[in-house]
Amino acid sequence: MLKVGLLGAGRIAGVHAKAITSHPGSTLVAVSDYLPENAQKLAAEYGCATRSTDEIIADPAIDAVLIATSTDTHSDLIEAATAAGKAVLCEKPVDLSLARARACLDAVSGSGKPVMIGFNRRFDPNFGALKAALDAGEIGKAELLSITSYDPAPPPVTYIKVSGGIFRDMMIHDFDMVNFLMGDAPVTVSAIGTSIVDPEIGAAGDFDTAVVTLTYADGRIAVIKNSRRAVYGYDQRVELLGSEGLLQAQNMLENTVIKSTTAGVTGAKPTYFFLERYMPAYAAEWAAFVDAVNGDTALPVTLIDGVNALAMAEASTLSAHNSKPVALADVLA
Amino acid sequence: MLKVGLLGAGRIAGVHAKAITSHPGSTLVAVSDYLPENAQKLAAEYGCATRSTDEIIADPAIDAVLIATSTDTHSDLIEAATAAGKAVLCEKPVDLSLARARACLDAVSGSGKPVMIGFNRRFDPNFGALKAALDAGEIGKAELLSITSYDPAPPPVTYIKVSGGIFRDMMIHDFDMVNFLMGDAPVTVSAIGTSIVDPEIGAAGDFDTAVVTLTYADGRIAVIKNSRRAVYGYDQRVELLGSEGLLQAQNMLENTVIKSTTAGVTGAKPTYFFLERYMPAYAAEWAAFVDAVNGDTALPVTLIDGVNALAMAEASTLSAHNSKPVALADVLA
Amino acid sequence: MLKVGLLGAGRIAGVHAKAITSHPGSTLVAVSDYLPENAQKLAAEYGCATRSTDEIIADPAIDAVLIATSTDTHSDLIEAATAAGKAVLCEKPVDLSLARARACLDAVSGSGKPVMIGFNRRFDPNFGALKAALDAGEIGKAELLSITSYDPAPPPVTYIKVSGGIFRDMMIHDFDMVNFLMGDAPVTVSAIGTSIVDPEIGAAGDFDTAVVTLTYADGRIAVIKNSRRAVYGYDQRVELLGSEGLLQAQNMLENTVIKSTTAGVTGAKPTYFFLERYMPAYAAEWAAFVDAVNGDTALPVTLIDGVNALAMAEASTLSAHNSKPVALADVLA
Amino acid sequence: MLKVGLLGAGRIAGVHAKAITSHPGSTLVAVSDYLPENAQKLAAEYGCATRSTDEIIADPAIDAVLIATSTDTHSDLIEAATAAGKAVLCEKPVDLSLARARACLDAVSGSGKPVMIGFNRRFDPNFGALKAALDAGEIGKAELLSITSYDPAPPPVTYIKVSGGIFRDMMIHDFDMVNFLMGDAPVTVSAIGTSIVDPEIGAAGDFDTAVVTLTYADGRIAVIKNSRRAVYGYDQRVELLGSEGLLQAQNMLENTVIKSTTAGVTGAKPTYFFLERYMPAYAAEWAAFVDAVNGDTALPVTLIDGVNALAMAEASTLSAHNSKPVALADVLA
Repeated sequence: MLKVGLLGAGRIAGVHAKAITSHPGSTLVAVSDYLPENAQKLAAEYGCATRSTDEIIADPAIDAVLIATSTDTHSDLIEAATAAGKAVLCEKPVDLSLARARACLDAVSGSGKPVMIGFNRRFDPNFGALKAALDAGEIGKAELLSITSYDPAPPPVTYIKVSGGIFRDMMIHDFDMVNFLMGDAPVTVSAIGTSIVDPEIGAAGDFDTAVVTLTYADGRIAVIKNSRRAVYGYDQRVELLGSEGLLQAQNMLENTVIKSTTAGVTGAKPTYFFLERYMPAYAAEWAAFVDAVNGDTALPVTLIDGVNALAMAEASTLSAHNSKPVALADVLA
Repeated sequence: MLKVGLLGAGRIAGVHAKAITSHPGSTLVAVSDYLPENAQKLAAEYGCATRSTDEIIADPAIDAVLIATSTDTHSDLIEAATAAGKAVLCEKPVDLSLARARACLDAVSGSGKPVMIGFNRRFDPNFGALKAALDAGEIGKAELLSITSYDPAPPPVTYIKVSGGIFRDMMIHDFDMVNFLMGDAPVTVSAIGTSIVDPEIGAAGDFDTAVVTLTYADGRIAVIKNSRRAVYGYDQRVELLGSEGLLQAQNMLENTVIKSTTAGVTGAKPTYFFLERYMPAYAAEWAAFVDAVNGDTALPVTLIDGVNALAMAEASTLSAHNSKPVALADVLA
Repeated sequence: MLKVGLLGAGRIAGVHAKAITSHPGSTLVAVSDYLPENAQKLAAEYGCATRSTDEIIADPAIDAVLIATSTDTHSDLIEAATAAGKAVLCEKPVDLSLARARACLDAVSGSGKPVMIGFNRRFDPNFGALKAALDAGEIGKAELLSITSYDPAPPPVTYIKVSGGIFRDMMIHDFDMVNFLMGDAPVTVSAIGTSIVDPEIGAAGDFDTAVVTLTYADGRIAVIKNSRRAVYGYDQRVELLGSEGLLQAQNMLENTVIKSTTAGVTGAKPTYFFLERYMPAYAAEWAAFVDAVNGDTALPVTLIDGVNALAMAEASTLSAHNSKPVALADVLA
Repeated sequence: MLKVGLLGAGRIAGVHAKAITSHPGSTLVAVSDYLPENAQKLAAEYGCATRSTDEIIADPAIDAVLIATSTDTHSDLIEAATAAGKAVLCEKPVDLSLARARACLDAVSGSGKPVMIGFNRRFDPNFGALKAALDAGEIGKAELLSITSYDPAPPPVTYIKVSGGIFRDMMIHDFDMVNFLMGDAPVTVSAIGTSIVDPEIGAAGDFDTAVVTLTYADGRIAVIKNSRRAVYGYDQRVELLGSEGLLQAQNMLENTVIKSTTAGVTGAKPTYFFLERYMPAYAAEWAAFVDAVNGDTALPVTLIDGVNALAMAEASTLSAHNSKPVALADVLA
């Protein structure tokens, strides 16, 4: 039975608490948060103790920590928890600073402790089925990958200002999905951003709509489209053209009912947002982490994956602001 | 070049005139109608002569006639045209009277002249693809066939009164589709009818909504559903469960555009009615008739098919009015 | 906190144990089974005691029982549990004997204790959304209802022999769905059955493929199609034509991936069977039962609903064997 | 009755010949081709004369010419035909040289004679319905446009070498579609190309797979994806995200049949190539040209549209070869 400490007690921490407590091989020992009332509320709901973050990391009876605190604390906590001998599952992104994330990777790489980054979409059954079909050779060799990833509505501008920007905060998931599916790092990154959804997002120095194209050494191409607003719901699709066919992962829908009237033929909208769409993925992510910590399987997503996605975000940010392609090697130099 | 006389100049005659004149192997020589102005209008549009029905039948230069007159004249015209040595394509149904249709079949069966009944849906590319998949064994042995066939709106009650009833006028197409797909005649027919769309249709002694179930000697079952009103358009679907799978022929849609908004995900309606849905089928039907007359292929739908469908309509009418199953053999006795 | 005793420890009991233990307002106290090792296995998995059925019913500390034993014990257990003051959720069908089920209804109707029958499909989100759209008037007045309900593969013939037949064992769910959607009992029932899937099912006196048509006093019609075999998975669809449109509840699919190759455009199959398709419905069913027992809401499915569905099964059995429509009033006389 | 001369007798000329001869308001007078046997074959099929190109242009009895010759002759023939007082419908692209196309535009702009460029996709009913929904405000303001445009198989490398490259030969259609839908010219063009389908295409200096992103002065973005190979057929989709929703124009399919087996749920492929997909569009294009020549409507696509699309192709070619964005103004300077 894996004994788990949860660092952070916000919304995403609640998602993880549910996964931890529902899994037959893990138990939630304690939760911490910089706002004590948050920790107490979550502790009451899931029947665990509240402690300080330091106490959780110092407790030898705790096997693993799940880091769901604010991004600026991730690297420090990964290092501290690893040093204390704990397995780590950390929410994305590793850091807003690529340099800091790489330093963190250096610091922990000798520890031998598993550090997994929470790219939950790898565990979505639809994207998983697409990957399985690709790996089985069902469309031959991959050639052109397209990811459509739209949020239903933009976050507050106050959040935007501390988010690290659309590429580090939102598209980071898509960068990891690209890496997951392409199995290799891109050579160049070309990004275009605009703030057509909300001019205040532009005034805050960020974009709300962005397109990134990625090139690969072997000639493959990937395209990612992000928008902070799709009024019909969370739009999460992947499409991959290969030498022998096309794979598409479509949206999950709220239900399967279709209504035909004089106005047309209407079906349900996509599931609303990440909690609705990816709840099974969070559970599967946790199960994969438990299996890896138990030594049954390899770690499915590593800190290196977190650094790689962050490097693509950094390159995209540069590219979008300077209106020219950026070589990934340059941001990693 | 097949020289064709067209008997009748109403709406469906216009459809056939277009098919005849568009086909490279046939030419429209003359048209007749009991309303001379109708014949003149069609003749002007398609560049042919107007004549009386008798003249057309008597003209040795005319190779084939297409009968698109009112149903009560079909049997007489089939007999007359066949006796005059002409190939015949006659609109459905053969007759409102099964006895008269069978007499017509007896009368012409010795002639050796091709008599085809206009069950145009056999030539719809969707139903044709379903049949081809069935014949190729793609779902194993057929077990349970379902036909959904709804008109967008009921005809005037004045038409209902002379139509012969929903089974002879509307479901006749579905009876033939069942025979086309099942390749055998049913043993029993059980029909239920109601006039829930328009009570005046019930007052006229007919139904506007009906369900017929058919049983076969080898244990197969078929179900046909008809409604005179589907406000979203012409609903024409076939679904066949087999030992190794299911085949479904879906509706044709007006276009492929999908709109996602806060109100849902909306696509186009089915093509509105038979002119929109089945225009390619009418052209293919005519091409098949020309090929058969030229001796290149067997006649794809025969007068016997017309009689069989009519027998099922007669059995259904009896069954619905008496609330009990009817053996097809009894109406053919 | 509702304290629950579970009677029976087979496969469906496991589904309910999961729902009971996952619900924040209920706890599983004890389980019984005529095979002690079954009870022990389930008790170990869900952390409860094992007891005899009599002990569970006699225990005043237990508030409710969930009856998931073999069908022939349902009526007796409903009566005993109700007499002992317990709320009851009983699996379908109430009984194989309509007379016994009606006697049970008489016996418990004065008790004031809630008795709910486990028609889980009412709690499926897709059928629920269809019902909500109907109730909201989105397709006007209902006219013609169609239910397609196919199992992926037939059960063993040994099961068939004790099942009560396809109408009582399998179509009972569809009868309840019809009642749920139509909101009224039918007047007549016409059933056709065949054993085209497996002749041994026919040799055992049952059917494996059946079609039932139902008529209503106000002219509506319903059609139910059942097959014991759909090799592509559990096919569970509902389609309702109304005066202002059509509603269709489609299948849930295993995933949303679509593959386009030279062989065609292929998507995932329907979820395989009732455990995959209806797991959320079982959880929602249990939640609704807890709410009703707590007095927050009316009981959503009652013992009367169980009796009504059983009456339709009895009428269908008669109709199929005698090849004629049966008035529902006659089986209830 | 518009009297038409057809310049060129290749495959696409045959498509136009069919449209011209099927239209009630136009007649095909003569056809020319540099290969006399081609012209004779087409003339025989459509019942017209064969003449030299010069004779057709010089004949005062001919009202309009349709230019379907090789691209390098387009500008000269547009100028000659316009000077001879004829209305012109010219196949895309106007020219491989942007400078030559602009000179042609200058030369003919004073003539007052209608010159339409054959961007047939504007007349596709699906893209037309998408445009109509956009213009009706159904998704609010356009923000992010995506075009997927894949050919089923690459042309021979011999063709590639004289084609002007993927941007001028293939993506030219998509540039016009972007202009049609966005209603404005882009500010910058960023192109990426690769030859992953066939290295010989790369050896010939061209790409077989390309992605272009376009920015607009008001913050909108467009993305175009091209591949010379989609083994499942001609993939022609448009998707437009707006402030109040998403519009998608999906592919046309060969038929509507769906097959469900143990292998999955399979539907038909997209219609194979442009002849199958766009035949109705070619007919509608011709009808729109006839209407415009008759003065009933404005010319729906002009020579300026042809020059604009060509400028975007030129900018894309530069961008892809130099790996940096190109301002459209720079290629038009």
